[in-house]
Amino acid sequence: MTDLDVKQLQRRLAEFASARDWQQYHTPKNLVSALSVEAAELVEIFQWLTPEQSASVMDDPESAHRVTDEVADVLAYLLQLCEVLGIDALAALAGKIERNEQRFPVGSAEPKIPRRHSAE
Amino acid sequence: MTDLDVKQLQRRLAEFASARDWQQYHTPKNLVSALSVEAAELVEIFQWLTPEQSASVMDDPESAHRVTDEVADVLAYLLQLCEVLGIDALAALAGKIERNEQRFPVGSAEPKIPRRHSAE
Amino acid sequence: MTDLDVKQLQRRLAEFASARDWQQYHTPKNLVSALSVEAAELVEIFQWLTPEQSASVMDDPESAHRVTDEVADVLAYLLQLCEVLGIDALAALAGKIERNEQRFPVGSAEPKIPRRHSAE
Amino acid sequence: MTDLDVKQLQRRLAEFASARDWQQYHTPKNLVSALSVEAAELVEIFQWLTPEQSASVMDDPESAHRVTDEVADVLAYLLQLCEVLGIDALAALAGKIERNEQRFPVGSAEPKIPRRHSAE
Repeated sequence: MTDLDVKQLQRRLAEFASARDWQQYHTPKNLVSALSVEAAELVEIFQWLTPEQSASVMDDPESAHRVTDEVADVLAYLLQLCEVLGIDALAALAGKIERNEQRFPVGSAEPKIPRRHSAE
Repeated sequence: MTDLDVKQLQRRLAEFASARDWQQYHTPKNLVSALSVEAAELVEIFQWLTPEQSASVMDDPESAHRVTDEVADVLAYLLQLCEVLGIDALAALAGKIERNEQRFPVGSAEPKIPRRHSAE
Repeated sequence: MTDLDVKQLQRRLAEFASARDWQQYHTPKNLVSALSVEAAELVEIFQWLTPEQSASVMDDPESAHRVTDEVADVLAYLLQLCEVLGIDALAALAGKIERNEQRFPVGSAEPKIPRRHSAE
Repeated sequence: MTDLDVKQLQRRLAEFASARDWQQYHTPKNLVSALSVEAAELVEIFQWLTPEQSASVMDDPESAHRVTDEVADVLAYLLQLCEVLGIDALAALAGKIERNEQRFPVGSAEPKIPRRHSAE
């Protein structure tokens, strides 16, 4: 598969909106809001689950579909935001990982409760 | 560029966390929370901006960097969530676009205030 | 009306949860998550509305009810979080306003895009 | 203490904004966004904490102050939103609790994972 899939997906998203005359709604402010709403819908799925229940959320077809669906929604708005703002999302992440590899060298003392961790 | 970039990025994210012994924090619940926090940080950049100011946020190097940085953070947690849950994010979005093309056929009456639009 | 209403509401919320054996879910982490989910549901109501449409959201009985309902949900989780953590929400806000009156004296130069404003 | 504290707080919040000419920013859309951003800042405090660490977050003066501060910020935006929209927040919650007491009678079968619970 090619990274053209990201570009292809962005193109399909743009065509989808354009064909329905919906780009008028796709201002950066509205897109970041929509993204945050979808992110909250992802949180909602896990909200009352115990860690054990969370770990097996993909074992049940219904919850697996809900999670996958919300992941798609978050990605949709993220890619549309990037399209509108001219941001290359994958390049942005690659650059961030590199910066973090500098900021958080392996073997340095790790904060007990890292304010952020993972590649951030 | 290839879609291997998504897989490469996921691998680098996993290696980054692993090398710092941070995967212990990367439960699905924590990852969706972290994703929602980053999405809110994106919202925050635009919060008090007018539509005009929002439209030119990428013209200023400092705000452009902030936006790109938060986009990277959102994508980082989304991809790590997908890794942990075994979800193919691009395939999920492609499937969602197809379902939405069925649900919202062009030419049907559009709701005045669409509850959701774009590929959702 | 008395500020006892806040205490009364907290008591009724606690009794409601207790009678249904739901306090087990009301850990601080779960409560802050739930609060953020309800806040996003509030955002969602306004998401695609223009400023004009937003301004008249309380004129339509259906959207007025939705907004009021989500305000109630946000307040419910905020008060329950405060109950669980032993925080006096009104006192916290009063203290914050005072600190902000010091931090943002009237007549000093205001940032063009205040990072935060209002009593924050 | 009287419920006038809520009204007093709303008045002080309005005066604070007015004195700095900040009401221009306080559209309903901006206020719900700001509220969601503050709610995310609350989530962020707890994000990587274990349940045990979360339970003792108020024992450490620094984290206790952070939590109290964000609670104040969430409440500030909620009350300002209610002021702008003409919503009585405490009455809204009281009404919601009553409706929920009908919707979720004690003794009926509780869903194992309630989609919502507490007074919602």
